[in-house]
Amino acid sequence: MAKGLLKNTVHWIPIKRNKVDVTELKPRKVPATFLLSLRATLIIGQAFSLIPVIGVFKKNSDISTTCITMIMFLQVARKWPDLARYTFKIEDLDPNYDTNLTYKCNGTCAVVLTLALLEHILSLLSAFAGAMVCYPDSSLYEGFVRHFYPWVFNYLPYSPVLGFVTQFLHFQSTFIWNFSDLFVICMSYYLTSRLEHVNMKLLAAQGKYLPEVFWRTTREEYGRAAQLVRKVDDVISGIVFISFANNLFFICLQLFNTLEHGIKDTSECNSRAEGSKTILGGYEAAIYFLFSLIYLIARSVAVSLIASQVNSASNTPAPVLYDVPSPVYCVEVQRFLDQVNGDKVALSGLQFFSVTRGLLLTVAGTIVTYELVMFQFNSTQDSATNTTQAPS
Amino acid sequence: MAKGLLKNTVHWIPIKRNKVDVTELKPRKVPATFLLSLRATLIIGQAFSLIPVIGVFKKNSDISTTCITMIMFLQVARKWPDLARYTFKIEDLDPNYDTNLTYKCNGTCAVVLTLALLEHILSLLSAFAGAMVCYPDSSLYEGFVRHFYPWVFNYLPYSPVLGFVTQFLHFQSTFIWNFSDLFVICMSYYLTSRLEHVNMKLLAAQGKYLPEVFWRTTREEYGRAAQLVRKVDDVISGIVFISFANNLFFICLQLFNTLEHGIKDTSECNSRAEGSKTILGGYEAAIYFLFSLIYLIARSVAVSLIASQVNSASNTPAPVLYDVPSPVYCVEVQRFLDQVNGDKVALSGLQFFSVTRGLLLTVAGTIVTYELVMFQFNSTQDSATNTTQAPS
Amino acid sequence: MAKGLLKNTVHWIPIKRNKVDVTELKPRKVPATFLLSLRATLIIGQAFSLIPVIGVFKKNSDISTTCITMIMFLQVARKWPDLARYTFKIEDLDPNYDTNLTYKCNGTCAVVLTLALLEHILSLLSAFAGAMVCYPDSSLYEGFVRHFYPWVFNYLPYSPVLGFVTQFLHFQSTFIWNFSDLFVICMSYYLTSRLEHVNMKLLAAQGKYLPEVFWRTTREEYGRAAQLVRKVDDVISGIVFISFANNLFFICLQLFNTLEHGIKDTSECNSRAEGSKTILGGYEAAIYFLFSLIYLIARSVAVSLIASQVNSASNTPAPVLYDVPSPVYCVEVQRFLDQVNGDKVALSGLQFFSVTRGLLLTVAGTIVTYELVMFQFNSTQDSATNTTQAPS
Amino acid sequence: MAKGLLKNTVHWIPIKRNKVDVTELKPRKVPATFLLSLRATLIIGQAFSLIPVIGVFKKNSDISTTCITMIMFLQVARKWPDLARYTFKIEDLDPNYDTNLTYKCNGTCAVVLTLALLEHILSLLSAFAGAMVCYPDSSLYEGFVRHFYPWVFNYLPYSPVLGFVTQFLHFQSTFIWNFSDLFVICMSYYLTSRLEHVNMKLLAAQGKYLPEVFWRTTREEYGRAAQLVRKVDDVISGIVFISFANNLFFICLQLFNTLEHGIKDTSECNSRAEGSKTILGGYEAAIYFLFSLIYLIARSVAVSLIASQVNSASNTPAPVLYDVPSPVYCVEVQRFLDQVNGDKVALSGLQFFSVTRGLLLTVAGTIVTYELVMFQFNSTQDSATNTTQAPS
Repeated sequence: MAKGLLKNTVHWIPIKRNKVDVTELKPRKVPATFLLSLRATLIIGQAFSLIPVIGVFKKNSDISTTCITMIMFLQVARKWPDLARYTFKIEDLDPNYDTNLTYKCNGTCAVVLTLALLEHILSLLSAFAGAMVCYPDSSLYEGFVRHFYPWVFNYLPYSPVLGFVTQFLHFQSTFIWNFSDLFVICMSYYLTSRLEHVNMKLLAAQGKYLPEVFWRTTREEYGRAAQLVRKVDDVISGIVFISFANNLFFICLQLFNTLEHGIKDTSECNSRAEGSKTILGGYEAAIYFLFSLIYLIARSVAVSLIASQVNSASNTPAPVLYDVPSPVYCVEVQRFLDQVNGDKVALSGLQFFSVTRGLLLTVAGTIVTYELVMFQFNSTQDSATNTTQAPS
Repeated sequence: MAKGLLKNTVHWIPIKRNKVDVTELKPRKVPATFLLSLRATLIIGQAFSLIPVIGVFKKNSDISTTCITMIMFLQVARKWPDLARYTFKIEDLDPNYDTNLTYKCNGTCAVVLTLALLEHILSLLSAFAGAMVCYPDSSLYEGFVRHFYPWVFNYLPYSPVLGFVTQFLHFQSTFIWNFSDLFVICMSYYLTSRLEHVNMKLLAAQGKYLPEVFWRTTREEYGRAAQLVRKVDDVISGIVFISFANNLFFICLQLFNTLEHGIKDTSECNSRAEGSKTILGGYEAAIYFLFSLIYLIARSVAVSLIASQVNSASNTPAPVLYDVPSPVYCVEVQRFLDQVNGDKVALSGLQFFSVTRGLLLTVAGTIVTYELVMFQFNSTQDSATNTTQAPS
Repeated sequence: MAKGLLKNTVHWIPIKRNKVDVTELKPRKVPATFLLSLRATLIIGQAFSLIPVIGVFKKNSDISTTCITMIMFLQVARKWPDLARYTFKIEDLDPNYDTNLTYKCNGTCAVVLTLALLEHILSLLSAFAGAMVCYPDSSLYEGFVRHFYPWVFNYLPYSPVLGFVTQFLHFQSTFIWNFSDLFVICMSYYLTSRLEHVNMKLLAAQGKYLPEVFWRTTREEYGRAAQLVRKVDDVISGIVFISFANNLFFICLQLFNTLEHGIKDTSECNSRAEGSKTILGGYEAAIYFLFSLIYLIARSVAVSLIASQVNSASNTPAPVLYDVPSPVYCVEVQRFLDQVNGDKVALSGLQFFSVTRGLLLTVAGTIVTYELVMFQFNSTQDSATNTTQAPS
Repeated sequence: MAKGLLKNTVHWIPIKRNKVDVTELKPRKVPATFLLSLRATLIIGQAFSLIPVIGVFKKNSDISTTCITMIMFLQVARKWPDLARYTFKIEDLDPNYDTNLTYKCNGTCAVVLTLALLEHILSLLSAFAGAMVCYPDSSLYEGFVRHFYPWVFNYLPYSPVLGFVTQFLHFQSTFIWNFSDLFVICMSYYLTSRLEHVNMKLLAAQGKYLPEVFWRTTREEYGRAAQLVRKVDDVISGIVFISFANNLFFICLQLFNTLEHGIKDTSECNSRAEGSKTILGGYEAAIYFLFSLIYLIARSVAVSLIASQVNSASNTPAPVLYDVPSPVYCVEVQRFLDQVNGDKVALSGLQFFSVTRGLLLTVAGTIVTYELVMFQFNSTQDSATNTTQAPS
């Protein structure tokens, strides 16, 4: 393995690269590198024992020494070194000076994690309030875990240790879920910024009389960016799939619960809770459900839109290439156009679906249909329940 | 016909056109400019404080001085000057002599707004008739606003001022809704006319032995038209999205209400209304519902079909280009064909969907499905209601 | 109009065509012309006052003298002369010796019309049997028309004349419905045969070293066939649309009725019919329903499959063109391939949908979904009816 | 790696290959031929009287003498000799040394047939257990066949011979069903391996400066593989269609039954079975249903994924072709790219649908929708049943 790695390493070192120190020549403008942009994201993942990537803190990113250990993102971890190496090579050829990239990644991290924390706190609050009503005889913590994790404590006897473990796993899974969305967003930012770099060059050249060499270098840069999207997709398409499937399922479920909740109160404990005096006056559950639903939908829409920007950015060159003036039209422009029109550059969910803007509409339609059917199913059940109870 | 061909032929010959003042040579034929065609539409918008575009009345359209202030169409307003400037540039290069365009825009305005007014009057009439029955003790106006806007006056105390404000907002929102459809229709007319101008030249040239310069100029004109569609879409795709979403939602809702209405009478007031003597003999609500539904469906279908003509018109050149005789086939024809086949020229709804003829079928299928499910849901609810009441 | 027609006629006369009498040179092999193939179809239409095309019986088909008068197929009739003229031109350039074509058209006519007649007779039989049970006091004919056309005689008083008129209109509409399917089938046969003629030439040339002129003439022939499909589609796409919409609607309806019928008997008359002695022992309605449903589905599937063969046949050239040996590869092959891959050659339903093999699957899925929902809706209704009746 | 490259390089050099007997030069490495790979599959089919292909055991596969007699796979059998001959020709041109292929085919055979046998045994066990409860008075075998095949013995009187025949036909149909999936899998393995052979050569050549002759020979090999996929699809698309339709239908049915079963027990016999002492303690039916469902879903997903790999493998060349360096770009590369982008290489179900990765998602969505609707329909029925029974 080490030998293979070494051989691979040799392959991608561009000869004569080390003769000139690039960073000394352009000391004032630091390129927005792959690892730099994702640094905050990865550190957060590392902090929660998800992605302890050694080398994240080093700007020179000597990745052959990179060591990755993961539990959850195992598939990503296995392919990560190759991807990082490939990215490093691409960045060496086409340095990217999009200074916003790092800010965008970090800002998104901050917003997503803050909201996730807020949601988690609200869920705890809601559970404590519920526990105070439903388990008035137990200790507060026992009542809380019994109320919150009935699928555990209906089968296992209560003990504080089991409570803590359950709670930790719950927290961990909430975090992983949010982190996978965050990860997809940051990767999409990075890929979009690479494609936008090509687009900027092209839009500046629209209608100009530029030599063949310009079109060749731009085409090659576009080709490298497209190849990078493909390599990244190979690595993260599993996470994209899980992220979309999770979001679709939980939106369906929570939307259904929330709509049901508005019509009639199904929880037996809550009906007894009328008149109770809790922190938010008995509205903990309602506030939590509403906040959770809005946050979930907003995050899902954001992931979809940001991930689909990779695809949108890849279609920008076509109009510029149609407008190339006839005298400078050459085989390079034709090849560029063939690639832009023939190649579908997009993140995908295990290659089952491509993440494009149209996907969001399809998913929304699916959710509406399922909601209607589920809602109706529920009302049929109620009808059955009502009618059997009615004569008694 | 021969004369028409000659005239068309003159069009595409790129003899340094700007040396001679074109408008002086052809003083009797005013080109159908962008602003001229949309003038009536924009004036109407302006009259309702929607799109006060200074410069609409000036034929020379010195747009750098254009000042746009809008409330509702804010997004459009922000990008409007750029679009107008770009359109002005395009029109300078390819003057468009489609004299029908202005008539079509104005005629459509007249028809849509007349029908919208008629619908609004019918809705008021229906509400007054309902108010006379349901609120026999209140004054006519109070009964009317209470009956018509229950979602306002169930929560706020009645006052004539609030009534007028509510009614004005209702009128305004009805108008905006109709206006957004109208706006999409007129923009589509304009874009289609530009593409049809190219198509006319091409169809006249089908199978003829024309020099490369003809194909180059025609390709460039097509390219400019396609680019114009893209720019317009950037500006109005939000309005297209809202227009389609609105129409889809209200067709589903009104169709559901109308179908329900035919089976059983759900309004408690109306059941008491039997034997009452109103202007239309108690059929105000029924007439209004039917007229409103038919108008809504007709308008939605019209918007879809007219907007999809942009896409249809962009596909016309392909067959002509396949038929170019072998001796005059050149790289220009190939580039033209590559663009026609590779480029999707169409208006879109925030780029979530393209407005093509196929879209109408998809939307119709969606409506039928939702109607079936909603209708069934309702019948389930009734079944539950009936059964619980039956034994009593 | 006459002048325009004359001018158009002049256009398509290929110069030097009339110098040599083509039919004298190839006297023994009569080309399968457009009108010859469709002769039987059109005569039948004519016989039922649908498409009285003068000139159908003349083999030389001097169409400028063609006079078309139609009631139902008005849109087709209006565009028919242009289409026939264009077809004549194409057939003059590429004579088609597919002798099966005429047999296939005539055979399909015979089969479809025989089955349609059989279905009509069964429907009458079923109605008479029903009438004998439900209207024992009326005369047989009065009972029959009252039973069969309740939507007429519930509103209008019975008179034998009205009965005959209603029955004639019913027969006429049944015929038109069958005829429109038949018409689409025969047109598809004709278009497919033209494309297959090109395909035969190409498949014989697969992998051979043929000169550029072969590829050019074959490409031009393919282009003419594709253009012909487009022209025919312009004329008959309305009929295709109506035919598919009709079939979809009636399959949904009859399938629903038949499935319902198997579960419980909904007609009140039939329930009284037990023990009655009719020709088929009371099973007239069941046999009619079953036969009608099977015939309807079979005919719909046949129309879909045969019409989609036009599209399938247009895709056959591609593999041959990929296999052209490198030494003889030329710009003609490339243009041919560009057309085959870029051009969607297919019949369409008013250009809302293309008739391809995939369409059949989509329609089948739609039918299954609608059946499930409608069936469920009905059972909900029954549930409501049962429950309200149960306590009494 | 270098050695592998060298060997691969040798492959595509078209030195007049037929002068030297290739098999004598490489006697130790037997090419993975079509028949060799499918040998185990076909022998198994033969053993069950399905595909007695004479010549399967002969490695030299002198197919002109091949004689095929089949009962079930009749359509395949008719076209099989042509396909085998074509495959033999292709294999002669492009020998395939993928030694894994035979192992994969045989391994899959072993796994599928073992699981199918296990499922069959479980179904018998479950039926015997049910028979012991439901038919305590009959002999065990009579009870078993009466319980298991009620649709036979409710209409025909019981006799042991009829029981054996029914059981044999049941076994046979189970086998055929499994075999058709197995057949599709093995054919897909073979086709994928041919395309992967081209892909390996291309990936090794990515970014290298190779002469036009390399691109030509590789393009021709890809073209032959694509043509082979088309020929195989012509032969087996009926089996693919039946396999997918079967799997879709039975997943819907069994999923519905299993979900229903978990909620309430619908079989009258089973309700009496409480407290009974059978081999698996009364859980035979539950275990059988669960195992059967999981096996069915797993097999269906496997067929879909493996068959869609043919399509995935056909898209791999595109990125390599985009990366061909400008100096060596030639018309061969362009033709190759045109084919890869224009040609849809995939297995299909009677050409109604192409087997791609996206198909699996569509099918999954269809199943979820149908399950929801069917589940709801059932609950409506229960509601109706409950309510009518409730007052009594």
